Amino acid sequence: MDTTRIHALTCLLGLVCSVWTGDDFSAPTPNIIIMLMDDMGWGDLGVFGQPSKETPNLDRMAAEGMLFPNFYTANPLCSPSRASLLTGRLPVRNGFYTTNAHARNAYTPQEVVGGIPQEEILLPEMLKKKGYISKIVGKWHLGHRPGHLPLENGFDEWFGAPNCHFGPYNGITTPNIPVYNNSEMVGRYYEDFQIDRKTGESNLTQLYLQEGLGFIFTQALAHRPFFLYWAPDATHAPVYASKNFLGKSQRGRYGDAVMELDYSVGQILDWLNLLGIAKNTFVFFTSDNGAALMSGIMGGSNGPFLCGKETTFEGGMREPAIAWWPGHIPAGTVSRQLGSVMDLFTTSIALAGLVAPDDRVLDGLDLRPVLFNNSVIDRPIFYYRGNEMMAVRVGPYKAHYWTWSNSWEEFNKGINFCPGEEVAGITTHTQEEHTLQPLIFHLGRDPGEKYPIR
Amino acid sequence: MDTTRIHALTCLLGLVCSVWTGDDFSAPTPNIIIMLMDDMGWGDLGVFGQPSKETPNLDRMAAEGMLFPNFYTANPLCSPSRASLLTGRLPVRNGFYTTNAHARNAYTPQEVVGGIPQEEILLPEMLKKKGYISKIVGKWHLGHRPGHLPLENGFDEWFGAPNCHFGPYNGITTPNIPVYNNSEMVGRYYEDFQIDRKTGESNLTQLYLQEGLGFIFTQALAHRPFFLYWAPDATHAPVYASKNFLGKSQRGRYGDAVMELDYSVGQILDWLNLLGIAKNTFVFFTSDNGAALMSGIMGGSNGPFLCGKETTFEGGMREPAIAWWPGHIPAGTVSRQLGSVMDLFTTSIALAGLVAPDDRVLDGLDLRPVLFNNSVIDRPIFYYRGNEMMAVRVGPYKAHYWTWSNSWEEFNKGINFCPGEEVAGITTHTQEEHTLQPLIFHLGRDPGEKYPIR
Repeated sequence: MDTTRIHALTCLLGLVCSVWTGDDFSAPTPNIIIMLMDDMGWGDLGVFGQPSKETPNLDRMAAEGMLFPNFYTANPLCSPSRASLLTGRLPVRNGFYTTNAHARNAYTPQEVVGGIPQEEILLPEMLKKKGYISKIVGKWHLGHRPGHLPLENGFDEWFGAPNCHFGPYNGITTPNIPVYNNSEMVGRYYEDFQIDRKTGESNLTQLYLQEGLGFIFTQALAHRPFFLYWAPDATHAPVYASKNFLGKSQRGRYGDAVMELDYSVGQILDWLNLLGIAKNTFVFFTSDNGAALMSGIMGGSNGPFLCGKETTFEGGMREPAIAWWPGHIPAGTVSRQLGSVMDLFTTSIALAGLVAPDDRVLDGLDLRPVLFNNSVIDRPIFYYRGNEMMAVRVGPYKAHYWTWSNSWEEFNKGINFCPGEEVAGITTHTQEEHTLQPLIFHLGRDPGEKYPIR
Repeated sequence: MDTTRIHALTCLLGLVCSVWTGDDFSAPTPNIIIMLMDDMGWGDLGVFGQPSKETPNLDRMAAEGMLFPNFYTANPLCSPSRASLLTGRLPVRNGFYTTNAHARNAYTPQEVVGGIPQEEILLPEMLKKKGYISKIVGKWHLGHRPGHLPLENGFDEWFGAPNCHFGPYNGITTPNIPVYNNSEMVGRYYEDFQIDRKTGESNLTQLYLQEGLGFIFTQALAHRPFFLYWAPDATHAPVYASKNFLGKSQRGRYGDAVMELDYSVGQILDWLNLLGIAKNTFVFFTSDNGAALMSGIMGGSNGPFLCGKETTFEGGMREPAIAWWPGHIPAGTVSRQLGSVMDLFTTSIALAGLVAPDDRVLDGLDLRPVLFNNSVIDRPIFYYRGNEMMAVRVGPYKAHYWTWSNSWEEFNKGINFCPGEEVAGITTHTQEEHTLQPLIFHLGRDPGEKYPIR
């Protein structure tokens, strides 16, 4: 669907909705929207210093909400990060780690038969107890085989794919990644859902936007509390954008994708306002891991932070993050809180009036005091790579117990997680142990991790 | 003067001024305030992505004005940069270059007897023709000997020093840097104007703020158009802040200095509003060169850009820049213009209704179409180091004709202009010539200058 049609739809529905009062849509518990980007870096937002300033809608979201400059993922790779967000638990607890190689990040490619363990409780399973209806739009990445799919793990609806849009594959030894509408496979990337590898054109973000807007509209009409997990993947390589956005940014295709995602975020927020449910909807925007610097200019930006995706340096795990809830979260605030994607689980169930499960360890915090009063809760941040805790942040201090970028073998093939950034003894290509005498940085004075203080 | 006293003074004068109407202070030509920071980097402002978010007043200035993410100095060192700002001409035209070593930046330490040549026309000399009164507050740096001082070059008033606050010196072989009130030396740094090298405490920024506020007040009362060149140097090493700001930032002393400067900018803008002259005052904020990365965590941040002060990489020459003029410059806009400190000369004389001198080449642009209509004027940016044009930017493309960070001799002593940033073949320690086949980068896609496209 092109943007003209979206505008037309928006206007039409606006007319319909304006007949009702906003209060008609209010619910006892807030709707929850988590917008999770794919490989988008901290430095990709205007409000976080991207020189191209491609994100007027996200910048506005920050101006109307709370910005988190110190927000982290739980693992610098997609699958474990997403598992942690939905379970509120570290990958070493929810099963998304490997023991078959030291500090190797786990994820679920097509070849892997495993996925999110059945005994894990996912956010939509919790929210169901309070009558929420939940939908995932976009990338799942917690397992593609029966038992591991979204509708078997608490989601009521799904439009998207179990994996990244890698490909195109030849369909003989490796099939293209399937696309699902709920439990039905409706096609495959490259075959039925086009991504032009040459031009970078694809209308997938528009599809995902429509799926999100439609779901919100239906639930608002039905006065039903909802959870929308909006997880588009346009900024994951191979990056794509629809025709209207291609060539529009100063950054090439990656920036075009950012502009389309930013536009979509703006459309969703406008939609909430139009439907009169903005004051009853908690929205959180973040990303699954740092920008994929190994992709060169086809990857995003981690701003002033060191290295990127796959690493436990700040560039690998510090994420762009904005909370938005007009009338509840004070506008234009900056939080000093060290936050984590795992907090989204704990905070969401608290907002829904639920009690956290007491039969397991949760690593997420309830951020309500932060969101409503700009309090700061003391808590550490753990930087895991696979099954190894590589580093810990406490206050402004970060201690590295292990340092590693990638192996010499990979590096010598041209795969570089830290291009143009070499900090001697830090961005090592062998796994260096510092458990007896950790390398310590002050991240306030030295966000780029260049000057160890011991 | 402590901040309580400033607040008290502000309130008192607010009462006095509120008796008059704002229109009483309007003048046929706008007042001009250029705020020039010392060694502050692009990435030091919240609005440009500093994670510590220490600049709420500058961020507000951007929200009320126009942000320039592509604004440049004319040389990555203080003296030539300042000479270019005040003359609208490249250092190779205004005399601030050397021929005694290839690509060596010129500046005026105490040992140098030269300074700004008499035949150069400085901005205050031009503005005088339209009845402006001009004051420089802070660092001059265009020569400390008779003939080269501010009052001999068009300024009517001066409070500050001819050089940086280096020292303390022993007073036998090298005297401490003098501080002037107009043509009178009123003392010396460290002797009469304290800077505690150990604690970082100094009230100099507060003095400079008071001098600025007082000058504005006097001219507003007299209904006289004014030019204030406000050039504090707290972010130049050794960085300092007053007691109320020390320890307040997350970044240590450097961040404390930024917070005090940001506070001061806020006070000046509030002052203009209070006096009712905001709508008749053009304010521009920028810095003289990139952050001094050789100072490590005592230096600032160049955000995603490569290297820093003294170099012709983006980190050395791209500057934070904000234009503010309520009612004239549209609020909350981002300009795509490639701007230069030299444009401040040309734009200021145009705003004052003056015609540019026609007996010499001017390198500055008249930015009025940019400021008022957000137009983009096609123009190149030249990156000089001393007398050598090292690089040129045209649109998004930057061609390096010479690459050099610093010499092996300096580097081996531990002086590093690009700490943690080594781009093979780019951040060279020998002067590498590429005039026959320049190294070209696309700064939109690759602002960090990591991936030459040829």
